[in-house]
Amino acid sequence: MTHFLSTHCTFTLPKTSKSNFKYQNCSSAVTFQNPKTSHLTLKSQFRSYQNKPFTALATSTIGQDIASKAHENSNDQFLSPKNKKVMVIGGDGYCGWATALHLSKKGYEVAVVDSLVRRLFDHQLGLESLTPIVSIQNRIKRWKQLTGKTISLYVGDICDFEFLAESFKSFEPDAVVHFGEQRSAPYSMIDRSRAVFTQQNNVIGTLNVLFAIKEFREECHLVKLGTMGEYGTPNIDIEEGYITITHNGRTDTLPYPKQAGSFYHLSKVHDSHNIAFTCRAWGLRATDLNQGVVYGLRTDETEMHEELCNRFDYDGVFGTALNRFCVQAAVGHPLTVYGKGGQTRGYLDIRDTVQCVELAIANPANPGEFRVFNQFTEQFSVNDLAKLVTKAGEKLGLEVMAVSVPNPRVEAEEHYYNAKHTKLIELGLIPHLLSDSLLDSVLNFAIKYKDRVDTAQIMPNVSWKKIGVKPKTVSV
Amino acid sequence: MTHFLSTHCTFTLPKTSKSNFKYQNCSSAVTFQNPKTSHLTLKSQFRSYQNKPFTALATSTIGQDIASKAHENSNDQFLSPKNKKVMVIGGDGYCGWATALHLSKKGYEVAVVDSLVRRLFDHQLGLESLTPIVSIQNRIKRWKQLTGKTISLYVGDICDFEFLAESFKSFEPDAVVHFGEQRSAPYSMIDRSRAVFTQQNNVIGTLNVLFAIKEFREECHLVKLGTMGEYGTPNIDIEEGYITITHNGRTDTLPYPKQAGSFYHLSKVHDSHNIAFTCRAWGLRATDLNQGVVYGLRTDETEMHEELCNRFDYDGVFGTALNRFCVQAAVGHPLTVYGKGGQTRGYLDIRDTVQCVELAIANPANPGEFRVFNQFTEQFSVNDLAKLVTKAGEKLGLEVMAVSVPNPRVEAEEHYYNAKHTKLIELGLIPHLLSDSLLDSVLNFAIKYKDRVDTAQIMPNVSWKKIGVKPKTVSV
Repeated sequence: MTHFLSTHCTFTLPKTSKSNFKYQNCSSAVTFQNPKTSHLTLKSQFRSYQNKPFTALATSTIGQDIASKAHENSNDQFLSPKNKKVMVIGGDGYCGWATALHLSKKGYEVAVVDSLVRRLFDHQLGLESLTPIVSIQNRIKRWKQLTGKTISLYVGDICDFEFLAESFKSFEPDAVVHFGEQRSAPYSMIDRSRAVFTQQNNVIGTLNVLFAIKEFREECHLVKLGTMGEYGTPNIDIEEGYITITHNGRTDTLPYPKQAGSFYHLSKVHDSHNIAFTCRAWGLRATDLNQGVVYGLRTDETEMHEELCNRFDYDGVFGTALNRFCVQAAVGHPLTVYGKGGQTRGYLDIRDTVQCVELAIANPANPGEFRVFNQFTEQFSVNDLAKLVTKAGEKLGLEVMAVSVPNPRVEAEEHYYNAKHTKLIELGLIPHLLSDSLLDSVLNFAIKYKDRVDTAQIMPNVSWKKIGVKPKTVSV
Repeated sequence: MTHFLSTHCTFTLPKTSKSNFKYQNCSSAVTFQNPKTSHLTLKSQFRSYQNKPFTALATSTIGQDIASKAHENSNDQFLSPKNKKVMVIGGDGYCGWATALHLSKKGYEVAVVDSLVRRLFDHQLGLESLTPIVSIQNRIKRWKQLTGKTISLYVGDICDFEFLAESFKSFEPDAVVHFGEQRSAPYSMIDRSRAVFTQQNNVIGTLNVLFAIKEFREECHLVKLGTMGEYGTPNIDIEEGYITITHNGRTDTLPYPKQAGSFYHLSKVHDSHNIAFTCRAWGLRATDLNQGVVYGLRTDETEMHEELCNRFDYDGVFGTALNRFCVQAAVGHPLTVYGKGGQTRGYLDIRDTVQCVELAIANPANPGEFRVFNQFTEQFSVNDLAKLVTKAGEKLGLEVMAVSVPNPRVEAEEHYYNAKHTKLIELGLIPHLLSDSLLDSVLNFAIKYKDRVDTAQIMPNVSWKKIGVKPKTVSV
């Protein structure tokens, strides 16, 4: 797998796009070119007849004027999206795709950088998004057709520095939003090789991004997706990245101690330390978004056309608690509460993910600053979620039941949890709350696509304790 | 380099050893065998006439009864060295070699696991140990000849899990002492590829060790070399691994916050987080020795024969402050104080390194425990060291002068520093103090070998701020 990632693929889009549903995926188009020409990039090219005006589409009233308002209040070069270039690494993924579209709509010039390896994971593990998703190429074409806006596409692996360097030199980003990591805790706990892959891929990829910024775009603002899981579940309040400690009569403000609970979460802890160092040593500017568990499917942009639809994972490896519960409710499967269900975490609607990233970009960190925002809007325990989904399901006439299953993870099932999350609110975040979103943004989609559900994928099949050194393969 | 490390070499020693000074290094003996036979390991084989008795050798009175005393007080299976097997990863290096000999002398059955890549770094950078060092094969042969004790040798890269697994299955260690990492901060700051190599090599190597213990030797005690540099220079007292924090009326004991100052130091921070997780999730037992700056050359064992002599680095990449100052004093070069010289760190004599490791092994962590000891004996600022060396040099008739050179690092040059280091003392450590050791253990050796000094290697040539993405090569 690592070997696969050390290559990258280049290709040219046909100038006309006859078949919008054609799956033109990376692996069918891999070419190995000579080094001098190997970093050709792709920009969607369309004839003018495809460039239809953007009309009669749903728009959000929340946060839509973030950039323009910020621009009124400051002269900072980053505050207006006009002519500002944002590179979205991992822009074909769940959060990345929604963010790329949102920023494009807001007027930023957007490039997606992605190895598309997330699609390979699905193939390898026999998983599939609940929602049908089209190729990144066709997604971008459709976006162009609907809005007239171009999203550039660089397909390659950021662990390959030559590829990343050429992408930077070609696109010249003013901000980089970095979602481009293996992001599943269970995936990182499948076997040794996937644990190693996760840390190597995530840590080295981020190191490369830091070096690319230092070398080619020193003023570029790094917006890095971290996770609330970096903090673990300490018995004191969780602050946003730093904590002021008085000890033996002296006081200092230090990085908040980290107690991550999987090789994936640990990889983000490693990233945070590496990024903090480069801000201190090189004067880079970075915002670490310690994101909670994301739920929901639609954003204003993804719902514009079925070809823009986002992926929705409900399986035991990539599915997160709430999304999985909604799918379980839709198909009449008991909600699978891991252990006692007292595990409490921060959650947010994917519409708030894109809003938060936009806020971070519009209000960049200062040179040398390593800023940490806790990016979630509400706290729930797993039992809370089960109750909410049960209640919402009943409104739709579904019979919903929750059962406790043995917890595949090693984690506290009853614990104190109080995490601060005011910094993004102070910047202007207006949250979507779960009580309002559950029906319209999650459960109804689960019902709509319930015929696509593979119930064999729902149960947890990765154990924190049973992870071993033998590669786990999937046999049918 | 990474590619080099992903191979490993196997070989067979000649049954007689005619030329003890023959450099039989790894690269000249690489063989690629078929997988079924590729993990043959090496044990020194000697004819009985070589097995001379161990007589009339200097012995240490400090700490020599650590294991036997501990054994009297407890029934723990680990406390007696008798039949206990210790794998020393990185056993050909500065601390590793001294430790391997010390443990062997104390009665442990020792295996050295080493890729020998540290010797390659010297070739690549045009550096050389002040002291002549012989091949690991001849070192081990000489040890056998002098003491009758066998040290097993496994030459390979622990990032290659297949090699590591076979080493574990073959040797079946009761404890693993893990020195096997790229250990120079300046090396990690030479260029992007070496920064990436350092983190990849150190983090993945340690992950592999953790998986090997879980899979093959669950009771095995991991003794991992960390560094005091993980803590940085906070404005409060540095505790040993953990700090109790009262915050908003609640209290918890959490991992001490880390603020490492180079990609190397960061790699150790990453290791610490990974190891802590595996102790929690899998019940592994581990001791993290956050070591200060080591100085000195001789240990009781290395001084038994010139072929057992340890390496001694004084160059700008691998040389540490005190060792470098002594060499500078010996050759009449001004002592190069970086910046203001107020940088304060913990220091220890290499004779205490081997004592500390022995103490950790003889008093293992409990299953599930991640224990952190700060392994140093005294604190000094760089200016303190310069003064001490100047004074000691004058006693020997040397004219010593200190000069400030631009600091190649990014670090505070005047700061509070008070780091706790009582846990190893409580276990029985009796420190060698610098005031006593400076003349007999460092400065006199520098003078003895001063004709081997290459003054061109003394000055710092790696800049924290100027690190770039282009590979730095050495041209003559």
